[in-house]
Amino acid sequence: MEKFITDKLEGFLLEDLGLAGDLTTAALGLKDKLCRAQITAKEPFVLCGADFAAEIFRILDKAVGIRMLKKDGGKVKTGDKIITLSGRAGAILAGERTALNIMQRLSGIATAVHRVTASLGGRRAKICDTRKTTPGFRYFEKYAVVCGGGYNHRFGLYDGILIKDNHIRACGGVKNALKRASGKKSLYKMVEIEVSNMRELAEALRFSPEVIMLDNMGPAEIKKAAALIKGRALVEVSGGVTEINAAAMADAGADIISMGALTHSSPSVDLSLDIL
Amino acid sequence: MEKFITDKLEGFLLEDLGLAGDLTTAALGLKDKLCRAQITAKEPFVLCGADFAAEIFRILDKAVGIRMLKKDGGKVKTGDKIITLSGRAGAILAGERTALNIMQRLSGIATAVHRVTASLGGRRAKICDTRKTTPGFRYFEKYAVVCGGGYNHRFGLYDGILIKDNHIRACGGVKNALKRASGKKSLYKMVEIEVSNMRELAEALRFSPEVIMLDNMGPAEIKKAAALIKGRALVEVSGGVTEINAAAMADAGADIISMGALTHSSPSVDLSLDIL
Amino acid sequence: MEKFITDKLEGFLLEDLGLAGDLTTAALGLKDKLCRAQITAKEPFVLCGADFAAEIFRILDKAVGIRMLKKDGGKVKTGDKIITLSGRAGAILAGERTALNIMQRLSGIATAVHRVTASLGGRRAKICDTRKTTPGFRYFEKYAVVCGGGYNHRFGLYDGILIKDNHIRACGGVKNALKRASGKKSLYKMVEIEVSNMRELAEALRFSPEVIMLDNMGPAEIKKAAALIKGRALVEVSGGVTEINAAAMADAGADIISMGALTHSSPSVDLSLDIL
Amino acid sequence: MEKFITDKLEGFLLEDLGLAGDLTTAALGLKDKLCRAQITAKEPFVLCGADFAAEIFRILDKAVGIRMLKKDGGKVKTGDKIITLSGRAGAILAGERTALNIMQRLSGIATAVHRVTASLGGRRAKICDTRKTTPGFRYFEKYAVVCGGGYNHRFGLYDGILIKDNHIRACGGVKNALKRASGKKSLYKMVEIEVSNMRELAEALRFSPEVIMLDNMGPAEIKKAAALIKGRALVEVSGGVTEINAAAMADAGADIISMGALTHSSPSVDLSLDIL
Amino acid sequence: MEKFITDKLEGFLLEDLGLAGDLTTAALGLKDKLCRAQITAKEPFVLCGADFAAEIFRILDKAVGIRMLKKDGGKVKTGDKIITLSGRAGAILAGERTALNIMQRLSGIATAVHRVTASLGGRRAKICDTRKTTPGFRYFEKYAVVCGGGYNHRFGLYDGILIKDNHIRACGGVKNALKRASGKKSLYKMVEIEVSNMRELAEALRFSPEVIMLDNMGPAEIKKAAALIKGRALVEVSGGVTEINAAAMADAGADIISMGALTHSSPSVDLSLDIL
Amino acid sequence: MEKFITDKLEGFLLEDLGLAGDLTTAALGLKDKLCRAQITAKEPFVLCGADFAAEIFRILDKAVGIRMLKKDGGKVKTGDKIITLSGRAGAILAGERTALNIMQRLSGIATAVHRVTASLGGRRAKICDTRKTTPGFRYFEKYAVVCGGGYNHRFGLYDGILIKDNHIRACGGVKNALKRASGKKSLYKMVEIEVSNMRELAEALRFSPEVIMLDNMGPAEIKKAAALIKGRALVEVSGGVTEINAAAMADAGADIISMGALTHSSPSVDLSLDIL
Repeated sequence: MEKFITDKLEGFLLEDLGLAGDLTTAALGLKDKLCRAQITAKEPFVLCGADFAAEIFRILDKAVGIRMLKKDGGKVKTGDKIITLSGRAGAILAGERTALNIMQRLSGIATAVHRVTASLGGRRAKICDTRKTTPGFRYFEKYAVVCGGGYNHRFGLYDGILIKDNHIRACGGVKNALKRASGKKSLYKMVEIEVSNMRELAEALRFSPEVIMLDNMGPAEIKKAAALIKGRALVEVSGGVTEINAAAMADAGADIISMGALTHSSPSVDLSLDIL
Repeated sequence: MEKFITDKLEGFLLEDLGLAGDLTTAALGLKDKLCRAQITAKEPFVLCGADFAAEIFRILDKAVGIRMLKKDGGKVKTGDKIITLSGRAGAILAGERTALNIMQRLSGIATAVHRVTASLGGRRAKICDTRKTTPGFRYFEKYAVVCGGGYNHRFGLYDGILIKDNHIRACGGVKNALKRASGKKSLYKMVEIEVSNMRELAEALRFSPEVIMLDNMGPAEIKKAAALIKGRALVEVSGGVTEINAAAMADAGADIISMGALTHSSPSVDLSLDIL
Repeated sequence: MEKFITDKLEGFLLEDLGLAGDLTTAALGLKDKLCRAQITAKEPFVLCGADFAAEIFRILDKAVGIRMLKKDGGKVKTGDKIITLSGRAGAILAGERTALNIMQRLSGIATAVHRVTASLGGRRAKICDTRKTTPGFRYFEKYAVVCGGGYNHRFGLYDGILIKDNHIRACGGVKNALKRASGKKSLYKMVEIEVSNMRELAEALRFSPEVIMLDNMGPAEIKKAAALIKGRALVEVSGGVTEINAAAMADAGADIISMGALTHSSPSVDLSLDIL
Repeated sequence: MEKFITDKLEGFLLEDLGLAGDLTTAALGLKDKLCRAQITAKEPFVLCGADFAAEIFRILDKAVGIRMLKKDGGKVKTGDKIITLSGRAGAILAGERTALNIMQRLSGIATAVHRVTASLGGRRAKICDTRKTTPGFRYFEKYAVVCGGGYNHRFGLYDGILIKDNHIRACGGVKNALKRASGKKSLYKMVEIEVSNMRELAEALRFSPEVIMLDNMGPAEIKKAAALIKGRALVEVSGGVTEINAAAMADAGADIISMGALTHSSPSVDLSLDIL
Repeated sequence: MEKFITDKLEGFLLEDLGLAGDLTTAALGLKDKLCRAQITAKEPFVLCGADFAAEIFRILDKAVGIRMLKKDGGKVKTGDKIITLSGRAGAILAGERTALNIMQRLSGIATAVHRVTASLGGRRAKICDTRKTTPGFRYFEKYAVVCGGGYNHRFGLYDGILIKDNHIRACGGVKNALKRASGKKSLYKMVEIEVSNMRELAEALRFSPEVIMLDNMGPAEIKKAAALIKGRALVEVSGGVTEINAAAMADAGADIISMGALTHSSPSVDLSLDIL
Repeated sequence: MEKFITDKLEGFLLEDLGLAGDLTTAALGLKDKLCRAQITAKEPFVLCGADFAAEIFRILDKAVGIRMLKKDGGKVKTGDKIITLSGRAGAILAGERTALNIMQRLSGIATAVHRVTASLGGRRAKICDTRKTTPGFRYFEKYAVVCGGGYNHRFGLYDGILIKDNHIRACGGVKNALKRASGKKSLYKMVEIEVSNMRELAEALRFSPEVIMLDNMGPAEIKKAAALIKGRALVEVSGGVTEINAAAMADAGADIISMGALTHSSPSVDLSLDIL
C-alpha cells in the first residue's frame, strides 16, 4: 500500500486512539488475549474499503491473521462475511471502529454509484464524481467512485482546467475567459468550460475547448446543446442529476454525467465486526 | 483558532491545491484581480462551519476582507447571505470548494441533529453522537453535533470506558467484564456498559456502572429496563433511533439517545459561493 | 509498539543524531563492526523503559539481536543485566545515549512512585500523578507512574474536568463554578473540584461533584473534611505530600494522593551500556 | 522565536490540549472572559524559560497582553512577579500548565548550574553539560545550562567527536582508536578522548587529541594527569562531580567540568500562575 | 505565499540552522545588531527566486525591512542590486546562504531556458521541462523554467499520461499500450506516447493520441515524422536538444521541445549578499 | 538506512506521485505485471546514490528483488549495469525517475570531485565542499563529495564557527571579531576566519584561530600567506579554484581547498533504467 495512504490510515487511527490509547481494553486486561472475529454485511451493498480496513489492523499489529473473503467492487449480501481476523484482541478492538467507519462510508458511495451506473442500462455515458468530497478524505471517496463503476473527474485544482461560472464572471464573459486560457502556461491539460445557456455555448465553441459542461440543463436543452456541439467537444452535464433522470440525460447526448451527491450525500451502509 | 484545527484546515486545502496549485485561475491570469463574493444558502438549514470557512480564506491570503453575517448554530433561510468576501480572486477561487465542502457537510449534520432534538419537544433526554464519524473529520463532525443542539459522547477510545458486546464476549460475560473493570488503572473515568437484554442488565446493575447502554431496544423494553435501573445509572439508548421514535424512547426512560446516523449519513446542504 | 510512540522515539533519536549522524563512530570506522553489549544497573531501582530502549535499537537496525532480561515494573539490583544486545556497533553506539536517557529518567520516576506506594503499607489510598510533567515526555512519565505502582490522573486538559483555584476565582466562587459546570456540554466526564477550606468544601458538597481535591491540607484538616464528605465524593489530597506523611494522609481519609514531584523532581537512576 | 522552537512549543501544548481541548474551561463557559493573571516565584531561583512561557500564551491567542518583569538568567526571590498576563481566560488557563512546566524545569536546571558555578569562586574552569538530557527536551535544557552560567558540550552525536570507553573497547585500545580517528573524513572537528588511567592517558597524548576527558578521577589523579598533559590538550573531568568537590577539581587542573546530573536530576522550582 | 511553499522554505532553513542555530553569529554577539545589506548580481543573468529569498528573511524575522529592486523573470546585469535588506544581523546572516542557494540555482535554470528560447528567434515551438529535476526541489525548478520563458510539462506521474519506451515494452508494443490506455479510468487527461521510429509512429497514429513524443530524432527524421502526423497530434521532440539545434528542430516540425538538461545540469549564477 | 534519510526519500517520491499516483501505469493496467529491469551507465563516471536508488524501490514495494552490481564511490564505464531489479512493474516504473534523478545528480558531483582530487596527483591538500548546496538536498550532496574522494566542511551554521567577510564588517574588523569569538559560549568548536589580504591575516594570527581561509587569492599570494602562518593554523583557500589550478594552490601551501561549484554546478551524468 502506498506510503501516503498508510500515513492517512495511521492518522485516522490516531484520531480514535489519542495519546492514552484504548482505555476500555486496557481496563479489561484484554490487550494480549487471542481471539477471532469477522466483519459481516448487515445489508446488501457494493463493497469498498476492505483493503484499507485490513491495513488498519496490520498497522496496529503485524501478527493479526487476516483473510479477505470479498473484494472491493464486488456485491455483498446481508450476512456475507467480508474479512475474518485472528490475533490479539487489543489490535482487533482498537481498529474496529476506524476500519468500519472507512468501509461503511466508502461502500455507501460505491453502492450509490453502482445504482446510477446500472440505471444507464449499458448506455455509453460515464458517471463521474466532482470535488464535492469530505475534506481530508477525497482520495478514498474517489476510489469508491471507481469501485462502484464510475469515473474520476479532476482530483483537485492542480490537475485540470475547468472554467466555471465564477471564472467567467471574473473574466467578463466566456469569450474573454477562453481567450485568456488559450495563452496559458501549462501544456497537456485539456480545457473544460461550464456554460449555462445556448449563447454561452455558441461563444465557447468558437474557441474549441476539449470539454463543455452544461450546467443545470434538462434533457431537452442538453439535446439542443449536443446538436450544436456536434462532437467537437465532450459533453458533460452537471446539476440536478438523479438515478431517475440519468438515462434520459445520456440519451439527450451527455458523454459524462457528474454528480456531487455521490460523494457528499450517500448514506453509509450497515456492517459489523463481531468477536466470535 | 487552535493550531491543530488550522493544521487540519491547511491539510484540507492542500488536498485540493496539490503542488501545482489552482491551474485554472493561473491560466486565466485572475490571481491578483480584486473581486467581491458571497456565500449564500440555497435551502433552509442550521448553519455550521462558517468560522472554518472564513479561516480557509485567511490561510490563503491574510488580506481577504471577511464579513460574517450568520453564526454557527443559527438557522438560515434560502437566499440568506452567510459570509461576504472581498479580495484577490486567487484566494477566493482557490478556497471556494474547500470552504463549501466543510460547511455543506457540517451544516447537514447540524440540521439533522436539530431536527431530532426538536422532535423531543422539550423532553429532558439528550441527543448524543457516536464514534461513527468520517475518518479524519471527527473533530469537525462532533462540533456540528453541538451546533445542532446535541451532546458529544466519547471523542475516542482514549477518553472514556465503554464496554460493548465484543468486550463482553471477550471477557466471558457481563459479570467478568465489570469485575475486571473495577480494578482498572485509570481513575476518574465513568464506566459505561452495553446490555442487550434484561438478564445482562440485572447482572450489570450489581456492579454499579455509571452509565448503562440499552442496545437496540424499543420503547417497551426501555421502560422495563429503566424500571429496573431506578436511577442508579444513566440510561443510554442506541440503535434504531429515528426522528420519529426518539420522543417515545425519551418517554420510556432514556437519559441519553445516541445516533450514529447523525454523523455518518446526514445529507449535505446546498450552498454556493458567487463572485459578484 | 503503537505508531505514535515509535514516532516519538524516532524524534528522540533524531535529536541526538541530527543530519550528519554519529561522527565518532564514522570517524572510527566502527559502523559495521559486530559487537555485543549489555545494559546494567549501577544501583538498585524499579525498572521502567526497557521496552522503549529496545525499540530504539530496533529503529536503528532491525538486525540487532536483543534479549530482555528484566521487565518494566520489576526491581533490579546493582549489577543486574537488563538487556543484552548483539549486532552492528554503529546501531548500538548511536542508540546508547537515547536508550539510557529514557530508562534512567523513567526508572527514576518508577522508583520514587514505588517508594511512596510502599510507605502506605497496604492502605487503600492510591498514589497518583499530576500534569506536572516534562513537556513532550508526558506519555512516558505517566507510564512510569503505573510501572511504579501508581495511578494516572488526567492525561491532559482534554480528558477530565478539574475545577481549580483559578477557575473558581474566574467564576466568582465555588457555587458559581459548579453551577456552570452542571450545564456542561460533555456527558460522561466526572467533575472534580479543588477546595482550600471547609467553607468552600461545604459549598461544593451541595452540587455533588464526583471528586473533591483538598488543596494543601494536613492530616487534621483532611480528617475534618472527610467527615464532612462522608463518602459522597472521592477525596483527593494534593500539595505537600511526601514519602513521610503519605500514610498519615491516607489514614486521615484520602482516597487519592496526588504528587507532582513524582514526575517533575525524581532524580534519574544510574545505568550503563557496556560493549563487551 | 525560531520556527523549530515554536514547533516544539506547539507540540508541548498539543500534548495537554489533545483534540478536544480544555474541557474544564469550556464546561465553565470561561473561554472568552477577560482576566488578568501573574506568574510568581514561590522560592528563590535563577529564572529560565520565561520567553518560552510567554510564547505559549501568544500561540494560544495573539491578543493576550504580556509583560515580562524578569529576564532569563536573572535571580528571582520568593514572591517576585515574573510575567503578568491580561486577556481571554481561555488562553491563559489553557497555557498555564505547559508554561509552568517549562519554567519550573528549566529554572531548576539553571539554578543548579548557577550553584556549582558559584562554588568555583571565580576559578577559570568551566561547568559544562552532557548529552544526559530528557528525550525531546535537549535544546531547552542546554539553554538552561547557559542561563545558569554554564557552557554547552556537544549538542548531539553529529557535532563533535568524543571517543569514549565503548569506542576504545570496540577499537581495541586507545592507540587504535586515535589512529583511526586521525584519518577521519570530517575536517574542522576537534577530537576528544576519554581516558580512565595514566596508561591510557600516556597513550592518548602521543596522538595529540584536542581535549582529554579524565573519567571518574579524584583531585589527586587529576593533578597527576594534568601534569602529564602539560597544556597540550584541554582537560575535561567527568564523573562524581558535585557542588562540594568541583572547586578542588578545578584546582587540580580541570579546564572543563562536565556534570550529567545538572540536566537529568535537578529538581524543579516552585512557581505559580494566579488569576487576579 | 502559499503554505506548502513556506513549509519548504522553512525546511531549507532548518537544514542550515539545525537545532543549535547559527553558532558564528551567536559567538560574535551579532544577533541583535542592526545592519543594512544588499544582494547583488556578480554576472548577467535572468533573475529567478527573489521572492523566495525575501520570504526566507521574513521567516527568520518579520521585522526585517526588504526592498525588491528586480523582478523574477527580468534580466540583471553585473553589479545590479536585486534586494536591499535592513534589520537584525542575526536574521540577515542566518538567511544569507539559504537565500543565495535558492536564487543562484533558480536563476541558473531561468538563464539557460531563456538562452534556448531566444535561440528559437520567434518560432512557434515551445521549450519545455521534464521530470529530471533535483529531488525535493521540483516545484521551484519548474517555476524557474516559466520565469525563463519556457513551459511546464507534467508536474509528476499524477497529472498526465505519458507512455514511454518502458511502458511500451511492458505492454508488448505500441498497439497494445494504446489499446489499454483507451479503456482507462481517468477522463480529462490527454494521452502522450513516445515513439522511436516510423513504424512505431504509424502504429501510434491509428489510436489518435493527443501528443506524440519523437525520441532522440534529428531534424531530418522529425520532418518525416511531422509529415506523417499531419497535425493530428502535437509533436514533442526530446533527447539531444541543445541551444544550437533547437531552432532546426522547430523548423522540422516540433511543437514542443523538451530538455532535461535545463533543470538537471544548468550551472548556478554568481550572486553575493554584502553587509554595508 | 537511517530514518531521516528514508523520510527524505519518501518525500522525493511523493513529489512525483502526488495523491493520484502513477496515472500511466494505472491506465495501462501494468501495476501488478512482473518484470525485470536494469539501471545502466550511459557514460563513464564515479557512481553515487545507488543505495538510495535501491531504497526508493524498497519503499514502493518490499517484494522487489534488487541486486547491486556496483558500489558508491566506484568508477563505472559506459554500458555497465549498476542495479538489476525484478518485481512488479508498478513499483519499478513509479520509482524510475526519482531513483535516476538522485543517482544522476550525486554521481555528477562525485565525478567532479574525483576529477579535482585526481588533479592533485597525491598532494596532501584536501578537496572540500561548502554550504553552496541545493536547498533540501544538502545531506545527499555532501555524501557525494565524500564518495568522490573529497571532505566535508561544516554541515550548516550549527556545527562550526566560520567568521566571514560579512561578520568581520559587522564587527568592525578582524581584531574585533576574533576578540568577541574568544569569549564565546560553545566549547569544542574550532574557530575559522576568512581573510582577504595580508593585513587582515597578520591581525588574525595574533588571536590564534584554528583555521584561516584565504579568500580569492592566487598561488603567489597563498605562498606569501602560508609563509606568514607558518603552520600555526590550517590554511584553507576558497574562490576561483578549478581543476586546472588546484594543484598549484596546494603547492603554494593550501591544506584545504574548498569549491562551491562542486555541489552547485556539476552537470548530471547520463543513466537509464530499462525494462528487459
